[in-house]
Amino acid sequence: MKIGFIGVGIMGKPMAKNLMKAGYRLVVYDINKEPVKELVTLGAEEGYSPKDVAERTDVIITMLPDSPQVKEVILGKDGVLEGAKKGSVIIDMSSINPAVSKEIAKKAEEKGIEFLDAPVSGGEPKAIDGTLSIMVGGKKEVLDRCYDILSKMGTSITLCGDVGSGNITKLANQIIVALNIAAMSEALVLATKAGVDPEVVYKAIRGGLAGSVVLDAKAPKILARDFNPGFKIDLHIKDLNNAMATAQEVGIPLFLTSQVMGILQSLKIDGKGLSDHSAIIQFYEKLAQIEVKKKD
Amino acid sequence: MKIGFIGVGIMGKPMAKNLMKAGYRLVVYDINKEPVKELVTLGAEEGYSPKDVAERTDVIITMLPDSPQVKEVILGKDGVLEGAKKGSVIIDMSSINPAVSKEIAKKAEEKGIEFLDAPVSGGEPKAIDGTLSIMVGGKKEVLDRCYDILSKMGTSITLCGDVGSGNITKLANQIIVALNIAAMSEALVLATKAGVDPEVVYKAIRGGLAGSVVLDAKAPKILARDFNPGFKIDLHIKDLNNAMATAQEVGIPLFLTSQVMGILQSLKIDGKGLSDHSAIIQFYEKLAQIEVKKKD
Repeated sequence: MKIGFIGVGIMGKPMAKNLMKAGYRLVVYDINKEPVKELVTLGAEEGYSPKDVAERTDVIITMLPDSPQVKEVILGKDGVLEGAKKGSVIIDMSSINPAVSKEIAKKAEEKGIEFLDAPVSGGEPKAIDGTLSIMVGGKKEVLDRCYDILSKMGTSITLCGDVGSGNITKLANQIIVALNIAAMSEALVLATKAGVDPEVVYKAIRGGLAGSVVLDAKAPKILARDFNPGFKIDLHIKDLNNAMATAQEVGIPLFLTSQVMGILQSLKIDGKGLSDHSAIIQFYEKLAQIEVKKKD
Repeated sequence: MKIGFIGVGIMGKPMAKNLMKAGYRLVVYDINKEPVKELVTLGAEEGYSPKDVAERTDVIITMLPDSPQVKEVILGKDGVLEGAKKGSVIIDMSSINPAVSKEIAKKAEEKGIEFLDAPVSGGEPKAIDGTLSIMVGGKKEVLDRCYDILSKMGTSITLCGDVGSGNITKLANQIIVALNIAAMSEALVLATKAGVDPEVVYKAIRGGLAGSVVLDAKAPKILARDFNPGFKIDLHIKDLNNAMATAQEVGIPLFLTSQVMGILQSLKIDGKGLSDHSAIIQFYEKLAQIEVKKKD
């Protein structure tokens, strides 16, 4: 079985490499030719369009920035659906609007092509290690057919429900992460401005009900003034944009998510779009005219 | 050394019992005579006013609902400061406004009396087990003198800084807890309303960056529709009220804390003041016209 891989950027390239290491034969495509060349030197074949990739493979994986790119690559001119054979499977591992996943799945189904949405979490380090968490939406039997492929890229593979459920689960994840960072930010900025050493606060509260993976992953970096990504503000804006669109579609208000979206957008305007999302604290620091940092 | 204990309610009573078990002699006082009688049958002496308690003891612990009660009991007529001997120590273990801690400490100091603010986290179960986390504000030498006493009530004792720092740290803790619950609520209500099983979402995301003590402690209870406290909405309103007052005093905005304060107040108006704070999700459920629960 040959696998197509479209989108070999920061995440896609190491994921493709892990498939090749496991013995899968790949046809790769990206508008950026640099990583394609690199993968070809490692033994991959080059595809010349999404359509071409789909014609030459049985399973087509896409790993792209957001909904518009996924629609273009799969539904557009010279796109995957123009080339894909009946019975083939498209696995979109991008993090996109779940409504778009459903729209694409419907159009694929009309041509007898299966579709899974399978966004990931864990970022570049886990993409490299092949230890991503993969949240899958689609038919169980289609996931069963693709399980071995996914297991070369991730260690936790969860079937969340029908098509779109993978992305809905991912959005739930991203809402919690953004808000937990904002929660930590309001707490640490208040304590610091009120005169308490934020490192003492962090150590005093981390073992109790306020404890979280975000607190342990981000507070020490904030205290060391390290805002290198990790996960970029720009990408979190994209995810929350999809969360807000989904909330709008199902008709519910997300009060805090809306607020933190505003904070992220303010940070982007301030030139921090490429900072780690823990830079949320810098929005509060600027207003408070302090920095949450280690005592000298 | 004799210890005074003023306020022997849900938290204070088991804390006093642990001191007695450790061999300390106690003089106890509460406006509610029931728990006082119970402690007297266990060997405590009854105090007849805060002043009386202070006259008969060297260390006076207060465990009261909020700032006004602490001010009344310590600074008021027949209060602790009227009876306390020079060189004695007041340990206020209530969770109150840090500005009030500072005000009381100043008045105590004028009479040669030491003061620590030492609010706790962990709730009734850890008060009973003597495993509370105690966040202390005050002088190191005063804490050193009182360390053995505190160690009978808690297992984690952190000196956070000068007087008031214990309560500031506690407020930071309570901000994070409230917002992490709201984060989980927005995520799970969105996913449920969008058609995904919330239990699947919980299990898919709990091991990653969205993981938190709140998520693991509260999501399973929400899925089982168990909103028994735990920690009551009414008490969390009190704490966030003190957090907002502190933010106002130091001059910073807490966007998300303000918002979740409004949500808590809405729930109180809806008659849920005595529910666990995880009932924050019910605010969203009502708007979404769904329940986040286990599939039948």
